[in-house]
Order: sequence, then structure tokens, then C-alpha cells
Amino acid sequence: MLRFDLLSTEGHARRGRLTLNHGVVETPIFMPVGTYGTVKGVLPQSLKDMGAQIILGNTFHLWLRPGLDVMAQFGGLHRFEGWDKPILTDSGGFQVWSLGGADGKGRKITEEGVRFASPVNGDKLLLTPEVSMQIQTVLNSDIVMQFDECTPWQTAGVLTTEAQARSSMELSRRWALRCKTEFERLGNPNALFGIVQGGMFENLRQESLDALVEMDFPGYAVGGVSVGEPKDEMLRIMAHTPHRLPAHKPRYLMGVGTPEDLVDGVACGVDMFDCVMPTRNARNGHLFTRYGDLRLRNARYKTDERPIDETCACHACATGISRAYLHHLDRCGEMLGPMLTSIHNLHYYLNLMREIREALDAGQFAAWRQRFAEDRARGV
Amino acid sequence: MLRFDLLSTEGHARRGRLTLNHGVVETPIFMPVGTYGTVKGVLPQSLKDMGAQIILGNTFHLWLRPGLDVMAQFGGLHRFEGWDKPILTDSGGFQVWSLGGADGKGRKITEEGVRFASPVNGDKLLLTPEVSMQIQTVLNSDIVMQFDECTPWQTAGVLTTEAQARSSMELSRRWALRCKTEFERLGNPNALFGIVQGGMFENLRQESLDALVEMDFPGYAVGGVSVGEPKDEMLRIMAHTPHRLPAHKPRYLMGVGTPEDLVDGVACGVDMFDCVMPTRNARNGHLFTRYGDLRLRNARYKTDERPIDETCACHACATGISRAYLHHLDRCGEMLGPMLTSIHNLHYYLNLMREIREALDAGQFAAWRQRFAEDRARGV
Repeated sequence: MLRFDLLSTEGHARRGRLTLNHGVVETPIFMPVGTYGTVKGVLPQSLKDMGAQIILGNTFHLWLRPGLDVMAQFGGLHRFEGWDKPILTDSGGFQVWSLGGADGKGRKITEEGVRFASPVNGDKLLLTPEVSMQIQTVLNSDIVMQFDECTPWQTAGVLTTEAQARSSMELSRRWALRCKTEFERLGNPNALFGIVQGGMFENLRQESLDALVEMDFPGYAVGGVSVGEPKDEMLRIMAHTPHRLPAHKPRYLMGVGTPEDLVDGVACGVDMFDCVMPTRNARNGHLFTRYGDLRLRNARYKTDERPIDETCACHACATGISRAYLHHLDRCGEMLGPMLTSIHNLHYYLNLMREIREALDAGQFAAWRQRFAEDRARGV
Repeated sequence: MLRFDLLSTEGHARRGRLTLNHGVVETPIFMPVGTYGTVKGVLPQSLKDMGAQIILGNTFHLWLRPGLDVMAQFGGLHRFEGWDKPILTDSGGFQVWSLGGADGKGRKITEEGVRFASPVNGDKLLLTPEVSMQIQTVLNSDIVMQFDECTPWQTAGVLTTEAQARSSMELSRRWALRCKTEFERLGNPNALFGIVQGGMFENLRQESLDALVEMDFPGYAVGGVSVGEPKDEMLRIMAHTPHRLPAHKPRYLMGVGTPEDLVDGVACGVDMFDCVMPTRNARNGHLFTRYGDLRLRNARYKTDERPIDETCACHACATGISRAYLHHLDRCGEMLGPMLTSIHNLHYYLNLMREIREALDAGQFAAWRQRFAEDRARGV
């Protein structure tokens, strides 16, 4: 099931509430990414403590490891990974694209689906819209994503042409219908989202959107952004597509992005975001704060006794963990470093969305957005 | 300061209470190892939650990284690593030995101290009894260990002779006196322990012990065990030395060991233990439980829905984390695996010592020990 209540709007920005089989999600929301059934380096309890409402799982990865036999035995991903709140799973389309290599030779796309070699053991695999639905049904995720072809920005250095983007979008559109048919055949009790494609071409985005809306999905995603394109290209699509989607259905911008991208996305009418950035960057010593980003590996932090951000309430900042200690842990390759920085970055992202929701509740999003930009420019 | 109250005894086994500058430690106790100012993979809060009373830091490692300037700026290790309970630091002697290589050519030992190349940047370094005391004074650890030469069991495949063990023990004895002199000159307000050496030779152990007792340290350690010797050799020294130390001073068996070793050590009159085994083995999928050890990488655990140990109250077991999930995390190289298994193993060790203290309080250590052996033999 999926119910979406649109609580208020300010320009294109929206405050909503999503009710799913495993609970309620207040939107706009950021969803931490848990590829292999774990948000990297973070205890499930820490995720709950920092107020995560919904997390992601990756269909492609979980299909390979631990495999569907284990997933079926556990009745889905929730019990397996010890997370009783909502889960969204992607469809595997993005991974098939990203694992195909820069020249795309690592996989073969046909009308039927995608053939590729398992990166784990080399097995020849075929992922189709139907298989993706079957896997996600076993995972029992609250939100299931259609299997799509993520249209690349470029392939081996050559930009995707409009004709290529159209062909790719039309394939995704046909796969959307096959996904819907299979999802219904399986009696999946959760919610299936369609994914708008069309590359960097507004006319194709509109065509894709119209076709998917015609199919009447309970929610929609905008895919094929954050795939290497310049920032202004992403912003152009972000400004074009989300607000044209049906007002009373949730909108998910896939794989985005920086704190600024999230704020821009909300202003463009997006309700849901996911990105590996907070956790991946944490592991590389790149910390997000209210007052800008902090590169922990900079030698100046070796003796800095301050917490990452004195105004932050995350476990690391609230317990007084210093920049010097985190710098030291990073330098020594100690696990505790990414554990603490992942908590901080995820807390920052989740709290950012909390602040946005509060601003929208108060009808003060525009003013909040101005202050956000000033704070971020201040510097740590 | 150090105060040791001997609360009760049962045979050689002792129940005691150690009062240090940063708090009280109930003995017998296991001390988790925090080499670089972090118990690998465990949040300080988790350590507190599982009842850790005192942790270790490594003088040698912290000297190299982050270095004494940072340590001095933070007023010692406690504030730097966010741990306000007692800390014990080793002297650097063991690391100088273990980093010397199998042939010992990586360092040069003289009467003055040990010269070696920094494993971090190749700098030529000299560690002496005086330098070790100076470093540990900056670290402000509650228990400071004397700088010693850890007598090897063998060097390049050749067993240490009695003459070599005597020469080494006598050097450590002279260094003990230099440590005491320097410790007092520095006005260090904490407690300095002497370390009994002598290799596998009871007569040398007795000589070392007598000389150190003459110097009147507030506590004593037994070093030079768990250095590659056969188990029965370790047990022979464990049976010989600890109970001969002064009854009203704490006794610390360095670097030991398995759960069985700890129980045997308590029976031999040891009050304090440390070992990397619970955390290191956790990272390799080797779990300790009441009912024996569990090798997580065994394929049989792929579908095992049970927690590591249903009778365990650690965070992983209490929240129902399954063996199958832990097996999956290990297989995928996910950080959450060692995070959860380190919590489990440390909790097991700390709880084992808690049970021993309760048994001693009840005058039931012998009966408890019998049940411990039966349970451990049962199998997981």
C-alpha cells in the first residue's frame, strides 16, 4: 500500500506524508543507501537514533549476495537486516549501467532485458523487468522501482544523442508496462514507482512523464540524472520535470546529491532523495556541515580540538569527538573514523531535511533557503 | 594513585577492587585493547554500554601517531579518545619486539634502550626507559608499564637459551629501576607497574620477581608469555609466577588470551588481562560464545537464522542479528560485520569476567569453572 498526503506547498516545494506498509515517512526526505543490506559503517540502532525513516536496498546486489534463497527464508529484507521501518529498493537498472564499464561492453541490452556477467563469480545473468519485480517481491520492499535503462550522459566520451536518448527512454517505457503487469501478477502488496527517463532532453522527459502518468503508478521517480553530467544540465532537468508530475503522488529524484542539490530539488517539487554521498564521502574524510564542507585530511585539523560542528547534535559532535581525533583515526586507517564520520554526515543530511520540513510547516521555506545558503558559505 | 583492596580469595583466585585516578575497576578484569586510541571498530559509547571498566592504549603507536604534541595539547589520552574511565598504557617494549621481525634485525637493543626505524615514515627512533616514562606521563594513563625487553620464545627458529633469557631479564630489571627513577622525577601522579620476565625458566622468573618486589612497585605484570610458545609452556609459567607476587598488589598477565586462558589465569591468581583476540578474531569471523567458538565463514551459517548466542545480552544478540546476516556481511566485506562481531566478542570477554567476579563473591568459583568448561565443550 501507499498513501500520500500533500500537507502544504510553497511554490513548487511540498510538505507531505507517505504511508507505507512498514510505517509513515514525512517528506521531503533523504533516504540513506544500504546497498548490501547495510548502510555502510552504521549500526541499525544508530540509524534509528538519528531519525532515519526509510532506507534503500539494492536489488542487484542483494540478488547476487546473499541471494534470493536467503531473502525468501527471512521473509524479505526487513528481518534480515534488522530494520522494521520502510525500505525502498532500486530495480537493478542503474547497477547494470554502472557495472557495464565506460564503453558499456560489460553488458548486452535487448528488448528482453540485460545480459551481463556477475561481478562476484562471473556467472552469466539475465535481468529483465519481470525478474526485477520477482526479486523485489521477495525482498518485500515498501517501494519497488521499475526496471529501467538508465540513459547515460556519455558513452566512451561521446555524448548521448537525442535519438539514442529517445530509444532508451522508449525501452524504459515499455519495461515500465511489463513491470506493472508482473508486479500485479505477483500480487505484490507494496507500491511500484515508474521512472521518468529522457536524458537531457526536455521533450523526451515530457513524453516519458506523460506515458508513465497514463499507466497510473502510485509514485514517480526522475532517473538518469547524477550520471556524470555537468551540474547545470542536472539543474535544468530538475527544474523541468518534477513539478510536472501528478501533484498528489510522491516524487523521487534518484541518486541526488549534495546538500545544495537537495535544497534545489525540494524547491523544484521533489519529495524523496537518495545518495551514497554522505556515507561514501565520510569514508574519504569529506564532512558536510551547516557552515560548509570540511576536508578532514587537511593537516590543519591535526590539532583542532573542536567538534566537526558545534551546532550539530549527532553522536560524534554531541559527545565532543574532536576534529583532531577524527583526523588521527583517518590517518591510521582505523574503522572508528568512518563509523563516526558516517554518523555525522548522515545526521547532517537527515537533519537538513528535518529543517526543510519544519520550514515548510511554518511557510518559511524561502527564508530558510536564504539562510541555508548564507550559512553554508560561511565556512567551517 | 592506586589502591588495591583484596576482597576475597578462593584458592589462588582473587576478587579485588582497584581504585585509580579515573575510577574504580572491579577485578578480575579483562581490558579491551585500544592500540591507536581506539578499540578497533567499537564506539566509545558501545564500550561503556557493555561495561568496559578500563581500556589499553599503546605507547609506541601513540608516540608515532598522533604524536606527543597532540597528546600534550589534549592533556592526555582520555580527552583525546573520549574515554573518561581508567586507561592502562603498555611501555612500547612489546611493539619494539614484535616489529623487529622474526630475526630481530629490525631493531638494535643496547643498555641505553632500543633503536629502530619508524614503521610509519622510516625515521630513526630511540626508545629508552626514560622516554617511555616521558611518553606515558604525557598520555596520563592511570597505569603506566615499565619499559622492558620482551624475551622472545624463539628467534629465527632457534629457542631462547637460559643464558639469553637471563641476560634479557636482567636488562629489563635494570630498566625497571630506571623507569621508577624517571617516573618519580617526572612527578607522574599515576601508578607504575613492574614487569616480571625470565622466559620459560622458573628460576629466572623467581629472580625477576624478587628484584621487582624489592623495588616496591604498586602493581606487577607477568610479561613474555603469549609470544608464540606452546600452550603448556604458558600454563607452566602462569602456574608458577602470579601467586608468588605480593598478595595485596594487583597482578596483570600481559597479552593473554583465550577464554580458557583467562579462567586458568584467574585460578592462578591473576587480576588483570588484556588481549587483541576478541577484536582481531571478530574481524576474522571467529566468535566466542558460552557454548564454544563459532567460525562465521562456515557455509552452514549462510541460512542460520539464530543469533550468535541466544543467551548473550550483547547488542548484536539482543537485537536479534542473525548468523546468516553476519555471514553475509563478512562475505561482502561490509564494515558492519566486524562492528557487530567486535561488540559481541568484547561483550563475551567482559561478561565472562563479570561471571567470574560474581562466582568469587559467592565463593563458588570452582563450581562455576566446572560449568564453564562443560558449557564451552557443548558446541554452538
